[in-house]
Amino acid sequence: MGRHYLQIPGPTNCPEEVLRAIAKPTIDHRGPEFQAMGKRVLENIKPVFKTKNPVIIYPASGTGAWEAALVNTLSPGDRVLCFETGHFAALWQTMATELGLTVDFVPGDWRHGVDTDVLAERLTADTAHEIKAVCCVHNETSTGVTSRIGDVREAMDASGHPALLLVDTISSLGSIDYRHDEWKVDVTVAGSQKGLMLPPGLSFNAVSDKALAAYETAGLRKSFWDWKPILDANASGFWQYTPATNLLYGLEVALRLLEEEGLDNVFARHQRHSAATRAAVAAWGGGLEVQCLDEREHSGALTAIRVPDGHDADAIRKLILDRFDMSLGAGLTKLAGRVFRIGHIGWFEDLSLIGTLGGVQIGLSLSGVPIKKDGVDTAMEVLER
Amino acid sequence: MGRHYLQIPGPTNCPEEVLRAIAKPTIDHRGPEFQAMGKRVLENIKPVFKTKNPVIIYPASGTGAWEAALVNTLSPGDRVLCFETGHFAALWQTMATELGLTVDFVPGDWRHGVDTDVLAERLTADTAHEIKAVCCVHNETSTGVTSRIGDVREAMDASGHPALLLVDTISSLGSIDYRHDEWKVDVTVAGSQKGLMLPPGLSFNAVSDKALAAYETAGLRKSFWDWKPILDANASGFWQYTPATNLLYGLEVALRLLEEEGLDNVFARHQRHSAATRAAVAAWGGGLEVQCLDEREHSGALTAIRVPDGHDADAIRKLILDRFDMSLGAGLTKLAGRVFRIGHIGWFEDLSLIGTLGGVQIGLSLSGVPIKKDGVDTAMEVLER
Amino acid sequence: MGRHYLQIPGPTNCPEEVLRAIAKPTIDHRGPEFQAMGKRVLENIKPVFKTKNPVIIYPASGTGAWEAALVNTLSPGDRVLCFETGHFAALWQTMATELGLTVDFVPGDWRHGVDTDVLAERLTADTAHEIKAVCCVHNETSTGVTSRIGDVREAMDASGHPALLLVDTISSLGSIDYRHDEWKVDVTVAGSQKGLMLPPGLSFNAVSDKALAAYETAGLRKSFWDWKPILDANASGFWQYTPATNLLYGLEVALRLLEEEGLDNVFARHQRHSAATRAAVAAWGGGLEVQCLDEREHSGALTAIRVPDGHDADAIRKLILDRFDMSLGAGLTKLAGRVFRIGHIGWFEDLSLIGTLGGVQIGLSLSGVPIKKDGVDTAMEVLER
Amino acid sequence: MGRHYLQIPGPTNCPEEVLRAIAKPTIDHRGPEFQAMGKRVLENIKPVFKTKNPVIIYPASGTGAWEAALVNTLSPGDRVLCFETGHFAALWQTMATELGLTVDFVPGDWRHGVDTDVLAERLTADTAHEIKAVCCVHNETSTGVTSRIGDVREAMDASGHPALLLVDTISSLGSIDYRHDEWKVDVTVAGSQKGLMLPPGLSFNAVSDKALAAYETAGLRKSFWDWKPILDANASGFWQYTPATNLLYGLEVALRLLEEEGLDNVFARHQRHSAATRAAVAAWGGGLEVQCLDEREHSGALTAIRVPDGHDADAIRKLILDRFDMSLGAGLTKLAGRVFRIGHIGWFEDLSLIGTLGGVQIGLSLSGVPIKKDGVDTAMEVLER
Repeated sequence: MGRHYLQIPGPTNCPEEVLRAIAKPTIDHRGPEFQAMGKRVLENIKPVFKTKNPVIIYPASGTGAWEAALVNTLSPGDRVLCFETGHFAALWQTMATELGLTVDFVPGDWRHGVDTDVLAERLTADTAHEIKAVCCVHNETSTGVTSRIGDVREAMDASGHPALLLVDTISSLGSIDYRHDEWKVDVTVAGSQKGLMLPPGLSFNAVSDKALAAYETAGLRKSFWDWKPILDANASGFWQYTPATNLLYGLEVALRLLEEEGLDNVFARHQRHSAATRAAVAAWGGGLEVQCLDEREHSGALTAIRVPDGHDADAIRKLILDRFDMSLGAGLTKLAGRVFRIGHIGWFEDLSLIGTLGGVQIGLSLSGVPIKKDGVDTAMEVLER
Repeated sequence: MGRHYLQIPGPTNCPEEVLRAIAKPTIDHRGPEFQAMGKRVLENIKPVFKTKNPVIIYPASGTGAWEAALVNTLSPGDRVLCFETGHFAALWQTMATELGLTVDFVPGDWRHGVDTDVLAERLTADTAHEIKAVCCVHNETSTGVTSRIGDVREAMDASGHPALLLVDTISSLGSIDYRHDEWKVDVTVAGSQKGLMLPPGLSFNAVSDKALAAYETAGLRKSFWDWKPILDANASGFWQYTPATNLLYGLEVALRLLEEEGLDNVFARHQRHSAATRAAVAAWGGGLEVQCLDEREHSGALTAIRVPDGHDADAIRKLILDRFDMSLGAGLTKLAGRVFRIGHIGWFEDLSLIGTLGGVQIGLSLSGVPIKKDGVDTAMEVLER
Repeated sequence: MGRHYLQIPGPTNCPEEVLRAIAKPTIDHRGPEFQAMGKRVLENIKPVFKTKNPVIIYPASGTGAWEAALVNTLSPGDRVLCFETGHFAALWQTMATELGLTVDFVPGDWRHGVDTDVLAERLTADTAHEIKAVCCVHNETSTGVTSRIGDVREAMDASGHPALLLVDTISSLGSIDYRHDEWKVDVTVAGSQKGLMLPPGLSFNAVSDKALAAYETAGLRKSFWDWKPILDANASGFWQYTPATNLLYGLEVALRLLEEEGLDNVFARHQRHSAATRAAVAAWGGGLEVQCLDEREHSGALTAIRVPDGHDADAIRKLILDRFDMSLGAGLTKLAGRVFRIGHIGWFEDLSLIGTLGGVQIGLSLSGVPIKKDGVDTAMEVLER
Repeated sequence: MGRHYLQIPGPTNCPEEVLRAIAKPTIDHRGPEFQAMGKRVLENIKPVFKTKNPVIIYPASGTGAWEAALVNTLSPGDRVLCFETGHFAALWQTMATELGLTVDFVPGDWRHGVDTDVLAERLTADTAHEIKAVCCVHNETSTGVTSRIGDVREAMDASGHPALLLVDTISSLGSIDYRHDEWKVDVTVAGSQKGLMLPPGLSFNAVSDKALAAYETAGLRKSFWDWKPILDANASGFWQYTPATNLLYGLEVALRLLEEEGLDNVFARHQRHSAATRAAVAAWGGGLEVQCLDEREHSGALTAIRVPDGHDADAIRKLILDRFDMSLGAGLTKLAGRVFRIGHIGWFEDLSLIGTLGGVQIGLSLSGVPIKKDGVDTAMEVLER
């Protein structure tokens, strides 16, 4: 009895107004009412990416938008530079390989973002410009580490290397400061089910002029993901094939809510919740540790927490789910059982964060992790300021 | 951004499934589909009152069911015995007077339930049996004090007095232990918007055989509230006039949810939340005080908290609403500005209680009430047990 | 499979947007968000009644608003003049009697509206002004006859009689032209579940200054229905007791929809549908007959159709319900089995009217009523114009 | 005012219960509640395809499932045999070409289904078995022609050719008889927004063992569409990447509704509506013509209607949309302006079909098409039987 706490780092809690909107009857995706909505949504999505360029909206979940970013800009055998910042970076690297690209995969410890020194080094060394694209995950959902894309851009500019910059913002868009145009990102990949506060089922490619130019010569095979026919149809507010109309209803509401709060306020709220959560972890002690090691890279969207040796993060999560009906994120692959993740992303406020941390505190205590029960209090001090 | 915390003692947070149910299209209230639902609802509501007798469901909010209890059992000039246990008891007394009854109103301090000694005394003194009914509010929503109806019954039985027992359970039904048949209550008055976890708009009279007998001679004028034609129509699953079909959809869901959790578990959950809240108040100190003074009478549904002199409870509530988007209950009439009320009733769980208390703690602190910031921690100790 | 056709004359089909609105979480009925909505709703409801005076909104279904109209303006033993225009007029007369009024009940044939000649005669004869109120049902839901309230007003004015004019618009408000102020109606009674396109659960009293003056001396007992405390609370956007918040959400939407279409267009649409329906009945022939006999009194909200002797209207309705999942209105009391009623009221359009008439035509044919199958065609001719 | 008639051949009218279901809060797609639902949905979807083999569910609209069918079974340069039965067949052929396949495209007149004689001829001639797959559109949404897949299978069997059989059932599944296993289809492609009565956003591949064997050597690049990781995850009720949880809620409801009605009844209902629609077209005359020329191939899902020379189908559609708020399907590419399409698919019943045909009849009349106004009547004769 009572509401479920969905504190995984996505899908996130959707605003009730969004859920009611997606329950509206589907309309003719070739009719004037849809057309007007299509135009509005395609325009209103741009500020969330901080871009003036087109944003392509796919009726598909986020992983598809990764594939779209690659197949629209690259050719078989092209070399791309990826960074092992965590589970999702690793998955993207796998996908690139599957699609016939050659991946330079810079290993990482899953506790830091993209290493811009290594990036600079690799690009500088690549005098033949064989590297066609640099792929970064802005916010690693598996680790709670946010790579500094502005610094990535600087390193690329400094190297004078012409590679494209492809960035996954699936778990950051609409929750962590992000600037498609200013950072000269060529393709920004995003999904609906995180900071955009929608159910899963929509994904996005924001594209630069340089990306659109690359499209012209990109040799990877594509059809569903092909930008051109979609952009052509979008020009008049339509889609090439059947769009996910009901999720677009929700998107329109979500975009209005973000605009009403103000993106800067949205980002500040997420950072504040992240800071409060880390303060709780520090206060708990007992061998718990925030997975992210660089102060500059703490994610506003989630906090990944390492449990001490001898404790099983999944058992703790299960106890919390059974006792409090709260879902927390699991540690993925390398971090399975070692980490649990608290999502504080999307439609979320101070009181539910306090409740979330309260459930984690009691859950840790009941699980026998030797914490001090000061976490919630300490987090509340942060929230009171 | 984020969900609203509706922590007034009713209307309460409705389960999402209930809200979706009331959004179903209205159906013909004279057709077979309605009839089947009508029969189910009329049957399934009985266990919540712990009665085997009929329960009348009005398409009207709770205040109406008070009126119904009186006009169906009493005659002009009849004497009724009421107890000033708080604001709602006082309102009921006013209503009785307006309807032409003579009210013996036993004064009270709004910090205790019905005084069964006084009750016994009055009944014993009334050898002429002029008192036709004893009216009690089971749970005083204005004070967080739960009168002990079992003890009321005992006192009445001991006195051998034949008065009817009319009990208002508007803010207790479905959240605090209540036994219509066992306690030989004659009319139980209830509403939809509290423990039944529905929006306001339905109200109830559970009736005893003795009440039905009293109906036969009751001389107060009535039409809308008249039991008989409703009971006659109910026999085949219908209502005399148009019922509130969409709220009945929700009621059917809510009754199922209560049954699934089990009423005893529902009551225990509310008591636990009440205990945790009181533990927080005690830990906060700073001159805060629980309004209820009798350990046996703490309400499982809400906690009314007195603020120290020099502080304005409404200003504190306003600060909390503005800062945390949480609604708390105001002090009513005599208690205006002196008390705020935390509802922990209905569709509610530990984590949201922690969040609620967290918001109150910060709100008190920001309002300059000299509390110790130990309230949430102490409440969590209770919840951890 | 497929949608249900709810073609009873109320509750009516609710707009999907209204249903989604009532599924919004309930809010604090004492808080600022409610207050703002309360003020908007109380203001926006006025034009639907064509009044500048207050409209009282009850959290109760329509029958209650009848009671309210009586108890707020009249005293025990007061004489009221009622007209037997059909089932609901008869019910209202019964209620008046139950509440202690003396009813002069002018008999009628259930096929005409209020007889203004008789009205004039009675009032003129009542030189002692014993008649305190004239009670009319604007649109008789049982017969599909709309009384001409403008003519009623004229007759009353001509007689110089000071009686109050109380009018039931439960099945006409928001669908048939009605003018509270212009016709100097003293209390207009209405409900949510017809032309207002809401589920049942709200009802209304629009009041004149004369009615408010009558209130001051009205001796009937009242509490729940008492205007004064509600009007006092309404002044600041609140209600005296818990309002039906979720239905008010829907009301706000419904009022916007009515305003967007324009009341005159709403009325014209209903009249057009009524004319098309009558055209179908005429074309069917076969002994079917429209219940209403006066061309000036055909209801825009519904059409009651008499079936020929030897046929059972309820059997026809049952066949149509079973075969087409369409609910039609039954004949009530005197008309049981003799009449079925087609509702064409509320949220309704040409195509669903065609479907409705199509289902009726096939149903009549399958039931063995010797109709010509020209009804739908003829109705379509009307709709094509 | 009134409901919108969405009579395009998909997206279709969704049951209200489906729409409410997709408005449920999103849950953890890695948790036990999702897992249980995942298992149920994956199992319950099978009977709709009449298969015992796995069905892959993509969080993407239908076009994506076409791509999936190709990339999971074929290799670059593979030859596939396609039939130009209409617009969607042509699009699929384009896609195959874009993905690097060699397409033998058998031209057609858009008024017949797959020509099984040509098929037999081509396969028999292909003694080298260069043709790796035969691609058919079961129901051509652009023409209302249903290819006879059973006959296709027979022709393939008779030829002894080992090509795979890939069939698009996007606008037939759940509305027109289809038998994945019996007809030995290797990949059946489907979408959510037609006979499955859901909003767009889910698509499907039902696969044969032979298809799974082909997967092992299929050389086309794939990642998002890759069957294997999805099937692996599905084994325990999960998905490899984030599924479209909220649409799966709706799917579960829709599958139950189909099961409750019974698939055979569903198919019969669609055929009946199709027959009634064609009867209306014949009765209208005036130069209107059903696009489908083969009696055996009339689609149960939609009827495409040719308008006489000198009339613009799009102008007729626009008039109907403006006047009756009904969306009809446009003629696509070759048929633009020549054809309009009436969808009678999904959640639909007799009465709304009558309303639909009524709107079309009046719209044709108002557009000056010289029809006889007997269409609706004639359709009703069919429906009455």
